[in-house]
Amino acid sequence: MDFRNVDRPNRRDLIRGAAMLGAGATVMAPFSALAASSQSAAIRKAAEAGKDAAVKRLRDWIALPSIAAENRNMAEGAAYMAELAKDAGFTNVEIVPTDGHPGVFGTIDVGAKRTIGIYFMYDVKQFDPAEWSSPPLEGKMVDKPGFGLSIVGRGAVNQKGPESAFLAALHAIRAAKAKLPVNIVLVCEGEEEIGSPHFRQVATKPNVLAALRKCDGIFIPFASQDKAGTVDVNLGSKGIIELELIASGEKWGRGPKGDVHSSLKAMIDSPAWRLVQALQTLVTPDGNTPAIEGWFENVRPLTDREKALIREGAKGGGEAAMKQALGVNVWIDDLKYDDALIRLAQEPTVNIEGLVAGYTGPGGKTVLPGRAVAKLDLRLVPNQTRAEAEKKLRAHLDKHGFKDVEMNVSGGYDPTEAAEDSLLIRTELATYKKLGVPANVNARLAGSWPGATFTAPPVSIAAGHFGIGHGSGAHAPNEYFLIDSTNPKVAGLVDATMGYAEFLYTLAAMK
Amino acid sequence: MDFRNVDRPNRRDLIRGAAMLGAGATVMAPFSALAASSQSAAIRKAAEAGKDAAVKRLRDWIALPSIAAENRNMAEGAAYMAELAKDAGFTNVEIVPTDGHPGVFGTIDVGAKRTIGIYFMYDVKQFDPAEWSSPPLEGKMVDKPGFGLSIVGRGAVNQKGPESAFLAALHAIRAAKAKLPVNIVLVCEGEEEIGSPHFRQVATKPNVLAALRKCDGIFIPFASQDKAGTVDVNLGSKGIIELELIASGEKWGRGPKGDVHSSLKAMIDSPAWRLVQALQTLVTPDGNTPAIEGWFENVRPLTDREKALIREGAKGGGEAAMKQALGVNVWIDDLKYDDALIRLAQEPTVNIEGLVAGYTGPGGKTVLPGRAVAKLDLRLVPNQTRAEAEKKLRAHLDKHGFKDVEMNVSGGYDPTEAAEDSLLIRTELATYKKLGVPANVNARLAGSWPGATFTAPPVSIAAGHFGIGHGSGAHAPNEYFLIDSTNPKVAGLVDATMGYAEFLYTLAAMK
Repeated sequence: MDFRNVDRPNRRDLIRGAAMLGAGATVMAPFSALAASSQSAAIRKAAEAGKDAAVKRLRDWIALPSIAAENRNMAEGAAYMAELAKDAGFTNVEIVPTDGHPGVFGTIDVGAKRTIGIYFMYDVKQFDPAEWSSPPLEGKMVDKPGFGLSIVGRGAVNQKGPESAFLAALHAIRAAKAKLPVNIVLVCEGEEEIGSPHFRQVATKPNVLAALRKCDGIFIPFASQDKAGTVDVNLGSKGIIELELIASGEKWGRGPKGDVHSSLKAMIDSPAWRLVQALQTLVTPDGNTPAIEGWFENVRPLTDREKALIREGAKGGGEAAMKQALGVNVWIDDLKYDDALIRLAQEPTVNIEGLVAGYTGPGGKTVLPGRAVAKLDLRLVPNQTRAEAEKKLRAHLDKHGFKDVEMNVSGGYDPTEAAEDSLLIRTELATYKKLGVPANVNARLAGSWPGATFTAPPVSIAAGHFGIGHGSGAHAPNEYFLIDSTNPKVAGLVDATMGYAEFLYTLAAMK
Repeated sequence: MDFRNVDRPNRRDLIRGAAMLGAGATVMAPFSALAASSQSAAIRKAAEAGKDAAVKRLRDWIALPSIAAENRNMAEGAAYMAELAKDAGFTNVEIVPTDGHPGVFGTIDVGAKRTIGIYFMYDVKQFDPAEWSSPPLEGKMVDKPGFGLSIVGRGAVNQKGPESAFLAALHAIRAAKAKLPVNIVLVCEGEEEIGSPHFRQVATKPNVLAALRKCDGIFIPFASQDKAGTVDVNLGSKGIIELELIASGEKWGRGPKGDVHSSLKAMIDSPAWRLVQALQTLVTPDGNTPAIEGWFENVRPLTDREKALIREGAKGGGEAAMKQALGVNVWIDDLKYDDALIRLAQEPTVNIEGLVAGYTGPGGKTVLPGRAVAKLDLRLVPNQTRAEAEKKLRAHLDKHGFKDVEMNVSGGYDPTEAAEDSLLIRTELATYKKLGVPANVNARLAGSWPGATFTAPPVSIAAGHFGIGHGSGAHAPNEYFLIDSTNPKVAGLVDATMGYAEFLYTLAAMK
C-alpha cells in the first residue's frame, strides 16, 4: 500500500486535517457504543483471553511470507488466508483464481440490516534478512520506546498485524457469545505489493461483486496512531501509474543493441540521450508540472470545502518539523505551507523514481549504453483514470517522435474519493470519537491504494481505512506492530481489537 | 588505457588505416635489422633461453596487483617496478613521489646518439575473481584457439605482458653481450587506470623532464596483433574528460536532501528532473553534437591528408562486420561508412556513460530521489584541452542557471598528435616492415590515453605505442597475454621480445 510510505515519518504534519475530534483525550476512553450495548465487558474479557492466541496467529502468519514479485508462497498464502477467514467465522470461503495470484472471498451473514466490506492483503513486501536486527520471519518481541512491546517481522504492520486485530475482534465477539451487529464481506488479494494487477478480477467475480455491492462501505484494517494517538480519516487518495520508460538501440533501430565503447559516440547514436530528450518533454522546465498532452482535461480541482479542510489543518502547524523530517528547505514555487499542502493534494505529478543506464558503480566506465531506463510514477487525481493516463502518455510520446521509447507499465490505481457524508466516513469519525481518539479529516491523500476497485463501477461503494493501533517500518527492515502499549494514547493489540468491535457496533447504530 | 576497450572486438574494422605495409606477409619475417647487425641470432638465443625467467617475472608481477582506485599495493607496486627496472639494467632508478601514488623513473645511458622514452604503467584495473575462469592473480596457462598458449591474469595484456616483453628484450640484449644501440629513459606511473591524475608531476620533475626532453619519442609497449597479425600505428588520440554531473537537494537548496516518498512530488522539487534539464542543454536534440557554449572554438578539423588516410582505410571494407560486432544498424545521420569513420575521428563528443538516481532495482519504488547522477565522458579533439573543456562546461552550466549542478571530474587527458613524419612514427613503420607485420596508419584514435603528458609542453616529444604480440580482455575477466604462439602471423613472447629489440636497432639506424 503505497501511501503509508509517505506518511510514516511525517503524516501528522503532512496531512493534518481540520476536524480534530476528541483532541483533548489523553487516555483511551471507555468503548462507549459497546458499553451501551452491555456486551463491552464480555467482549473485552474475551479479547484479553484471546490475546495470546491472536499473537500466535499473527506470528504464524508472519512466518509464511507470500511475495508476489518473487512468486513465493502464493498458493500457500491464499490457502492460509482462507483458513484464517474460516477460523474467524466466515462462511462460503473460497479461493478466487485470477490470471495472476489468487484472491480469497468469504462472508458472514447474520441477517443484519447493514453490511461492511473488509479488504485484506495477504502478501508482503520483499525483504533482505541481512538488513534486519532480528529474523524477519521470526516475530520477535521488541520494546519500542514511547510505544511498548511490539512484534517484529515482515508484514507486521503491512498488513498482517491490523488484519489479525480485526480477525481477533470476530473471535472475541464469538467467544463472548455476543451477536455480531452487521454482516461482513471479506475480500482478499495477494498482489497488493505489486500494484494489484488482477484484483479487479476478484472483485468483479459475479458472487463477489454481488456481495460487495450490498456493502455500506469497505475498509482495510489499519494501525497508524502516532505518539499522540492521532489517526487520519482520508476522503480519497490519488491514483498512480508506475512504469519504466525504456530507450534502447534494440527498439529504436539507431544506436547499439548492447553497451559499446564510449569513443564510438562520434559515429553511433545514444539511447541514453534519447531517453533524456523524451523525458524532458513530459514536464515543464522546472520539472514540477506535467506537460503531457491533454493531461489536465479531466482534472477536477479541489472543492472549496476540500481546500478549507487543508488550510484548517495547516493551521495546526508542523511546517518546520515536516521540512526537517523531509530534508527540504522550500516547497515548490516557494509556496506557503497551506498552499503547498493544497498543491500536494490537488496536482497530478510526473515523478522520476529512478534512472538506470550504463555504468552505475563508483567512478566511471567508458561505455555508450545500449539501453537507458527511467522509472516513473505518475500520480493521478479525480477524475483522471489509469487507463486514460496510459493512453495519453503513449500518445504524447508518439506525437513527439518517441514511438520507439517503450512504456512498461507495472501497475497502477485510479484515484479514489469517499464522500465526507458517506456512512463509512461518518461511522469512522463517530467510532474514533467514542474511542476518544483524535482524528484528522484529510481531504485527499497524495499517496495511492487499490480503493478504486471498490469506489469505481461496478462495485461503487465507499472505501477507506480504519483502525487504531500502531506499527511502522512498512517496506523497510525491522517492520513492527505494537502488541502491549505503554502509551496511554496508543492502542495495543487488545485495544485495537476492541476498536474494530466498536466500529461494527457503531455502524449498526448509525442513523 | 582507454582506447583498447574500443578496439578490442573490432579494431581491425574500426580504424583500418591506409598504409598497409607488408600486408602480404604470412609468416613472421626474419628480424632483418638485427640480422644485418649480426647480433640477431645471439639475442634471439638469449631471448629463448630467458623465456622461462620472463614468464616467471610476468607471473610474479601479476600476483602483485596495484590498484589505485582501491589504494591497494601502491607502495609495493612502485617498489616492485623499481626492482624490475634495476634488474633490466636501468640505473639511477628512483621512486618519484606525487600528491597521489608514486611513479618510477630510471635511465640507461650507453652514450648512444639517440634516446627512446618508454612509458610503463604498473597499476591494473579492478577485478572480481568470481567472474574469472581461473584465479586472476595466478597466471594460469590456457590455450586460446587461433593464438596459442596464453597466461591468464589481471594485467596480463594491460600492460604487464607487453611491458615484460620489453624488459625481456633488455635482458636478452645484455645476456647476448650485445651493445644497446640507443639510450633509454623509463618513466612509470601507478595511476593510469584512474586517469593519470598525478602523472604530470612525475614527468615534470626536473631530472625526469630533462631526461624526457632528450628522447626522440616515447612509446608504451603494446600487444594488439589480430589473427592476421595486423597492428595499428596511430597518429594521435582524442582527449577526454570523465566526470559526474550531480544534481542534489543538498546543493540546489530545493528538493529533498535524501530520498522521500514520491507522492511528495506535488509539493517538493525534484533533483532528478533538474539533472534531466541540465543534461539536455549539453547536446543537440538528436544527442549527437555538443551544444556547450564555445565548444568548437579550438577544434581543428581533420586535414585532407588525415581524411584521405581514413577514406583509404574504409575501402578495406569491414562495415558489415563492424555493425554486427557493435549491434548497430546505422551510423549517426545515416552517414556512409567512410564519412562515419571521419566523424569518429574528427568530432568531439558528449557521452552519457551512466545514469543513476533513486531506485535502480527491478520494478519500481515510489521515491523522489534527493540526488541524481549522470556519468559523462567528453572526448576532445585537437586543439581542445582538458582544462578548456572543464572550464567551458562549468561556464555553460552556470550560464544556463545550473550553478548548483556539481561537476565531479575524475580524470582526463588532452588530445595527442604524432606527426606522420616524426622519427617515432617512421621508426615504428620501418620496424613493422622489417618484421613483416602488416601495419595500418590510423589518422586519429577515437579513444584516449595519457600521451599528451609527453606531446604537450614542457616535454614536447612524439608519443605512441609500439609492439607485436597479442592479448585480450583488458578491464574484463580472463584477461590474457599470448606466450607460445601457434599462429605464424602473431608473435608469442619471444617474438614480441625480439620486436622490441628490432625497434631499438632500427631507431639507431634511422636516417
